Amino acid sequence: MSATNAPNGADALIATLLHNGVDTCFSNPGTSEMHFVAALDNEPCMRCVLGLFEGGVTGAADGYARMAGKPACTLLHLGPGLANGLANLHNARRAHSPIVNVIGEHATYHRALDAPLTADIEGFAAPVSSWIRTCESADEIAATGAEAIAAAMAPPGQIASLILPADTAWSPAATQAPVTAEVGSLRQPAADIDALAAILRSDAPTALLVNGNAVIGANLMRLGELAARTGATLIGDTFIARIERGAGRPGIRRLPYFAEQAIETLSAFEHLILVDTKAPVSFFAYPGVPSELTPASCQCHTLTAPGEDTAAALLALLDAVGGSAPAAVPELERPALPQGALNPQSIAQALAHLMPEQAIIVNEAATGGFGIPGATAAAAPHDWLDLTGGAIGMGIPAATGAAIACPDRRVIDLQADGSGMYTLQALWTQAREQLDVTTIIFANRKYAILQVEFMRVGAHNPGRRAMDMMELDRPNLDWVALAAGMGVPGTQASSAGALSSALEHSLATPGPYLIEAVL
Amino acid sequence: MSATNAPNGADALIATLLHNGVDTCFSNPGTSEMHFVAALDNEPCMRCVLGLFEGGVTGAADGYARMAGKPACTLLHLGPGLANGLANLHNARRAHSPIVNVIGEHATYHRALDAPLTADIEGFAAPVSSWIRTCESADEIAATGAEAIAAAMAPPGQIASLILPADTAWSPAATQAPVTAEVGSLRQPAADIDALAAILRSDAPTALLVNGNAVIGANLMRLGELAARTGATLIGDTFIARIERGAGRPGIRRLPYFAEQAIETLSAFEHLILVDTKAPVSFFAYPGVPSELTPASCQCHTLTAPGEDTAAALLALLDAVGGSAPAAVPELERPALPQGALNPQSIAQALAHLMPEQAIIVNEAATGGFGIPGATAAAAPHDWLDLTGGAIGMGIPAATGAAIACPDRRVIDLQADGSGMYTLQALWTQAREQLDVTTIIFANRKYAILQVEFMRVGAHNPGRRAMDMMELDRPNLDWVALAAGMGVPGTQASSAGALSSALEHSLATPGPYLIEAVL
Repeated sequence: MSATNAPNGADALIATLLHNGVDTCFSNPGTSEMHFVAALDNEPCMRCVLGLFEGGVTGAADGYARMAGKPACTLLHLGPGLANGLANLHNARRAHSPIVNVIGEHATYHRALDAPLTADIEGFAAPVSSWIRTCESADEIAATGAEAIAAAMAPPGQIASLILPADTAWSPAATQAPVTAEVGSLRQPAADIDALAAILRSDAPTALLVNGNAVIGANLMRLGELAARTGATLIGDTFIARIERGAGRPGIRRLPYFAEQAIETLSAFEHLILVDTKAPVSFFAYPGVPSELTPASCQCHTLTAPGEDTAAALLALLDAVGGSAPAAVPELERPALPQGALNPQSIAQALAHLMPEQAIIVNEAATGGFGIPGATAAAAPHDWLDLTGGAIGMGIPAATGAAIACPDRRVIDLQADGSGMYTLQALWTQAREQLDVTTIIFANRKYAILQVEFMRVGAHNPGRRAMDMMELDRPNLDWVALAAGMGVPGTQASSAGALSSALEHSLATPGPYLIEAVL
Repeated sequence: MSATNAPNGADALIATLLHNGVDTCFSNPGTSEMHFVAALDNEPCMRCVLGLFEGGVTGAADGYARMAGKPACTLLHLGPGLANGLANLHNARRAHSPIVNVIGEHATYHRALDAPLTADIEGFAAPVSSWIRTCESADEIAATGAEAIAAAMAPPGQIASLILPADTAWSPAATQAPVTAEVGSLRQPAADIDALAAILRSDAPTALLVNGNAVIGANLMRLGELAARTGATLIGDTFIARIERGAGRPGIRRLPYFAEQAIETLSAFEHLILVDTKAPVSFFAYPGVPSELTPASCQCHTLTAPGEDTAAALLALLDAVGGSAPAAVPELERPALPQGALNPQSIAQALAHLMPEQAIIVNEAATGGFGIPGATAAAAPHDWLDLTGGAIGMGIPAATGAAIACPDRRVIDLQADGSGMYTLQALWTQAREQLDVTTIIFANRKYAILQVEFMRVGAHNPGRRAMDMMELDRPNLDWVALAAGMGVPGTQASSAGALSSALEHSLATPGPYLIEAVL
């Protein structure tokens, strides 16, 4: 409540957010959100983190949710503020990250006047949101806020968008008591456990395609045990919101990105059992290549879909399979520090050598990062976060949010240069909050994936005008200057040795750092 | 058509775009747009300009449309690419800028598979688009493209969003001939010209609130003549897409931004005649302040609404009013170059002294720019472009697009620092295209408008936590480093003399330049 006013709708909302454990707000407010900002002044338990662009705000909320396992809220300024955050909300939706968006709106009586900032906020929100509500009075804010939290936390995690007209925030709220969010449980899977166990016990080559809750914590070890007992192969989806990996964790190979390779991988199996995921499809369509990746010779079965109780299902399946064998896990291996030329391989080697315990790796390295999972499979145990929705510009923001969620862990963002330019503003937030984030820019100075894809979709050899749309070298970006402009120190590395030294320096130094790896 | 393939849907679309004068494409393509990019290779008449973020792409299309008076097309990558461009499309919609968005989509048969990048593209497009169509075959692309162009050019100018599934672009197109867009005419106004003439001839204090087509070219001179003959006051909307001003042009005072001041301005009149605009409303709602700005004592009349034939209406009104008097126009005045402290006033004075003939001023200076229109009213004749939709981040992109549209004119972007950070990536496009754009960053290192608005909406004195959401000085941004990182040279100015020197240097030097004016 403010010093001079009675408690208002904004106060009531913040009380309900805190009551339900939502204590972090990634924010870029405007005039219509000023009462929410004023209410923040009085609630030291709500951490409010400013972003200089809403793509950074929503991407940070995604990274935070993946690591904290609970929602942050965002504070966004009307339709355009939400619009700027939509691409990373798209990624968050694909990651099943719980997020509560608080979106300011004109006062209820002002909306019909079509002022310049008036827009169809619910329309903007709909494609990414599983729950949308516009408050119409201060009195309902606490209850509606609790509904938003419940919607966000509904398994497997969703985007909830709560639209807050300015007068509902500034008017006195009759109801002051915070409201408890009633969060639904994981759904019980409908799988025929005995049938799946029979497949796993048979001689038929079988793989488990895994994602979601299956690849963290105890479930990951259960997967490893299942593989050890049955000889089944564990394959992870190409992009995973959060996976635990490295020394001591069962290794999960990944389904390749390119459709032909994915189909070839799966053609080795007669059965594919889906664990917390759905049947795999091609990222893009290509002329003459199937979009569904499971070959006709391979039968697809579902153990659990996202939102179902994977822990219970895995325990039941282990029980039905019987036997006993411990999960095969790699021991820690530290390759030598790389020498010589700087390339994706030497970056991977330096990472594998230097990665600290419990690092959080954010992977938006695109083509430059293809070899890193393999090289770091036996590195120190770490979490790995992928770009789940293909909307580039997730890396710097998600690293920012992950660092807020896990202040005791080092975050390393493997960042393609083209993608990094989408939301570079989040570097400033890393500097303001002095977050322990190391950003490695894979500076190949092109949209390399497009040069590959251009051929793959069947277009002819690109000429100068086409290449101009895929090259970033006229002029070159100077990432060290960009970072310095936002208060993040950094250096450029052109050799494997320089990269290793810079990485070692950053890992030993609190606060953010950026390394431009010139490839 | 490509060297090795038969003409496809992408070729057909580009042919129709060019046939209708759409010869500039602001672009950030992805895999699903590769055939469109391949088609560009074969069409040297289509200028394709790469942006490193879609907010820069759509904002450039807005600036281009305002100056070229015709649409550019954008090339955007699926739902997330469009989403990143929505905020500046919101501004463009408010500016009545014609734009044809070409939005890539998964192949028709791939859409149902819910691949990672799948999103409701039409849903994202709806809040900003007056026309949306998803192509379903290559054969219809030319005709649908012509419809999109016609929709974009329908008065007063609209956003058309054409969604292009990848297989419609890559499949052979049976119809090769480009299709002519049937563009609608300005609507005839329904105003009672004689009644309005009677009001203007009366002694009742009368103002004309003007915008759109009324404030450029011959219409602007007609307004001046009308004012001279009748004593009516000319008032422009607070934000105008494009207005011609300076020496030799009738002066148009602006309706103040803050509601109380706008109401006070209008309370001096008994009649308000709307010319190519609608009745004025407050930008935001404030507790206890009316949202509709025309006081009860002032009667509102419409001469023309946007999309109506303002030229014909003004000629008819001049005829009905009778008499003859030339428009009062200022002669060129060049104030002395400023000395001493750097502040918004000295920046305005330097601008007024140094502004070249036919400069294009893009105004996103926010609070720092309040005094500039007054100071430059008799500067060399120039065009002035405002932020029409309140979605910050329009300045750098719109300046980029205006410079592409008018390569012989100097563009000067008056740019608030907080707003500039939204779409700073467009500086790189200025460097790549070597555009004659001078960016002046008003570096007050805060969201100054919010510190004003915080009080005005009735919130209490902000404390540290609230101020943290409105201040950009922890750490300070270094705009010269940011610009250098994208290949744009620049300098920091901390005195009026330094600002003047830097501005003079930039105006005499081809290519982009950035001046960080530290306030």
